[in-house]
Amino acid sequence: MREKNIPPLVSSGEVSQLLDIPSLKLEDAYHKGIIKKYHRYGLEAIQFRKGMGHIEAGTMVVNGDGIEVIRGFPKIRRTLMLQPALGQHFSREVAVEEKMNGYNVRIALINQEIVAFTRGGYICPYTSRKARQLLDLDDFFQDHPQKVICGEMVGTLNPYVSHYYPEVGKLGFRIFDIREKLTNTPLPLLFKRELLADYHLEPVRLLGIFPVEEAPVKIMEIVKDLGEHDREGVVMKDPHMELEPLKYTSSQAQAAELEYALTFPFDLAKAFLFSRIIREGFQSYETGESDQERRERALRMGESILYPMLETIGKVEGGEVAAEDLLIEVDSQEEAEEFIRHLRDLKVMASLVEIKDGKAVIRRIHQSTNDRVHNYLEGGLY
Amino acid sequence: MREKNIPPLVSSGEVSQLLDIPSLKLEDAYHKGIIKKYHRYGLEAIQFRKGMGHIEAGTMVVNGDGIEVIRGFPKIRRTLMLQPALGQHFSREVAVEEKMNGYNVRIALINQEIVAFTRGGYICPYTSRKARQLLDLDDFFQDHPQKVICGEMVGTLNPYVSHYYPEVGKLGFRIFDIREKLTNTPLPLLFKRELLADYHLEPVRLLGIFPVEEAPVKIMEIVKDLGEHDREGVVMKDPHMELEPLKYTSSQAQAAELEYALTFPFDLAKAFLFSRIIREGFQSYETGESDQERRERALRMGESILYPMLETIGKVEGGEVAAEDLLIEVDSQEEAEEFIRHLRDLKVMASLVEIKDGKAVIRRIHQSTNDRVHNYLEGGLY
Repeated sequence: MREKNIPPLVSSGEVSQLLDIPSLKLEDAYHKGIIKKYHRYGLEAIQFRKGMGHIEAGTMVVNGDGIEVIRGFPKIRRTLMLQPALGQHFSREVAVEEKMNGYNVRIALINQEIVAFTRGGYICPYTSRKARQLLDLDDFFQDHPQKVICGEMVGTLNPYVSHYYPEVGKLGFRIFDIREKLTNTPLPLLFKRELLADYHLEPVRLLGIFPVEEAPVKIMEIVKDLGEHDREGVVMKDPHMELEPLKYTSSQAQAAELEYALTFPFDLAKAFLFSRIIREGFQSYETGESDQERRERALRMGESILYPMLETIGKVEGGEVAAEDLLIEVDSQEEAEEFIRHLRDLKVMASLVEIKDGKAVIRRIHQSTNDRVHNYLEGGLY
Repeated sequence: MREKNIPPLVSSGEVSQLLDIPSLKLEDAYHKGIIKKYHRYGLEAIQFRKGMGHIEAGTMVVNGDGIEVIRGFPKIRRTLMLQPALGQHFSREVAVEEKMNGYNVRIALINQEIVAFTRGGYICPYTSRKARQLLDLDDFFQDHPQKVICGEMVGTLNPYVSHYYPEVGKLGFRIFDIREKLTNTPLPLLFKRELLADYHLEPVRLLGIFPVEEAPVKIMEIVKDLGEHDREGVVMKDPHMELEPLKYTSSQAQAAELEYALTFPFDLAKAFLFSRIIREGFQSYETGESDQERRERALRMGESILYPMLETIGKVEGGEVAAEDLLIEVDSQEEAEEFIRHLRDLKVMASLVEIKDGKAVIRRIHQSTNDRVHNYLEGGLY
């Protein structure tokens, strides 16, 4: 029974050798659901739904012209206190790149086609199409077919995380890493940036390279300034890319995330609340802010928790549905529907509202929020 | 194997009959840990750790002069929106009693002794002793040995929930229900209050009895006023006590609980945060408050989340331990140690700091908060 239906890629000796994991272990992982079969858009692949040993979640093994391994993007850990963490973590210098508020995309050449994977390893049809439109990657991939471009899809016409950046507008892609397909080895920071410049590809902003002693103060200033411009934060990197990067975000980013979570409290808030609040606590502590600044932060936190709830309760009472509308650019109804099918793969329930001026409005309903707010408005007990 | 060591009370035909649960089901519940053996202070009993059918969690079956059943205090459900809930729930009138911020205690006569049980059914040695000192229950129990006095232990010298009430001071007991031992049937509200007056026993405050149509507006005013005086909220009851009571609390109570939870964020906050925030959202919505009032509420929420974290981080950095000190009045070291053993039964780790002027200082360490704050202050990653 157990041996039935194992995809050939899972049992393949070549895959086992490439990943340095015994075939039996891979088969076991398949039975446990760590690895899943993934057949979409003409590609035959296996997807790592979870991490397994040294192989990251989101890793895809694709049966193309040969077997291609696109490794998952490594999780970047967060520092709560810059001062002690940077000194502990980095050796000499810290390079600071902007962390943008969008979604993580890996772009690679597979079977001579440019394909975009989201964080979990799903091929996103919209992102793949947009990547081909927005970026001229032909020369790059001709010269570097074994490399993976890792970056953030940002802008307002972004179905996952819509955020306005003045320099981006509707949709743009900013690159933060170039990695090797099979090994996931990243290029050193400056080398990466030069290579991107050679191909006229746009990197995320480099905000400075600092001696580790000066870095905490500098970075705190940078993050404060980013926050005041409604920007998310930074990723701190070893310029040689031999140490794990770290991330750190602005109070405004935390507030924005609270705001989003509390717009759909019974769907999202439990998962979001605690960690955002903890980040604020340590940031406020480290900055040693004045009473006035601290009070402003408390108010910002309180408002981003309370106000979105009030808005949602009001909407539901007024007969609206607790939902968010995702906007994407499409050339046809089929493109919109393809994207909705992709969302279903991600277990996100959404439906097409309308297509107007080349934009599809896709509604994602947050069912628990909808049901529970209704219930309480009708006198239901908690 | 399974049949070994079942306490006789669990298998007893008499207990089965009294509770109206087949013996086999009781034995099964015992194996599942729903029922536990409880031998303390010379009493042989079984304790319902969880609810089971119509029998509430916290129910105690005691082998005394006969078999005595002290039923668990029923969980009181909460309304998030007074206006729709009260109309749905109550029929003609709503009696409003103050909900005080202390801990729920049931006092009963067992083997001619006055014994105090906390919510979970544990006999609290401190509460039992204090109940005997504070209350003159002899006449009451002589006349009503089959009744259980249910009330709130409040005040500052209260090891579970310390809160200052001007009319109480250090320690006091306010009664909200009189119930029957085996059936848990409560006395009708006015009859209960008359009976308590007859025995000079103090009830919680009755804040009004309103027609159900007027109740939401009246109660919102009452709760607002209570909040402004740092008091918790109300329990709304059917005067005949034939319908389940409901509770509703002030914004200040929510803020105070957030403050407590965020003082020990890695021990308490996850469990507390979400529900308190939801209560605030619906209360703010229902009161239709002005922009200014709403902003004040947001600030109150933000401050009660942020400030206690800052204080705890500061303390830990300064070398202190993340802990709370419980104060109880004792006549001897043995009394303090007895109470600490009782806390161990509850899985609360605490130790005696000192005894001074008849007061024992008992320190409860919040270990996760302590360890994790230390770790982040030393540069640990999140």
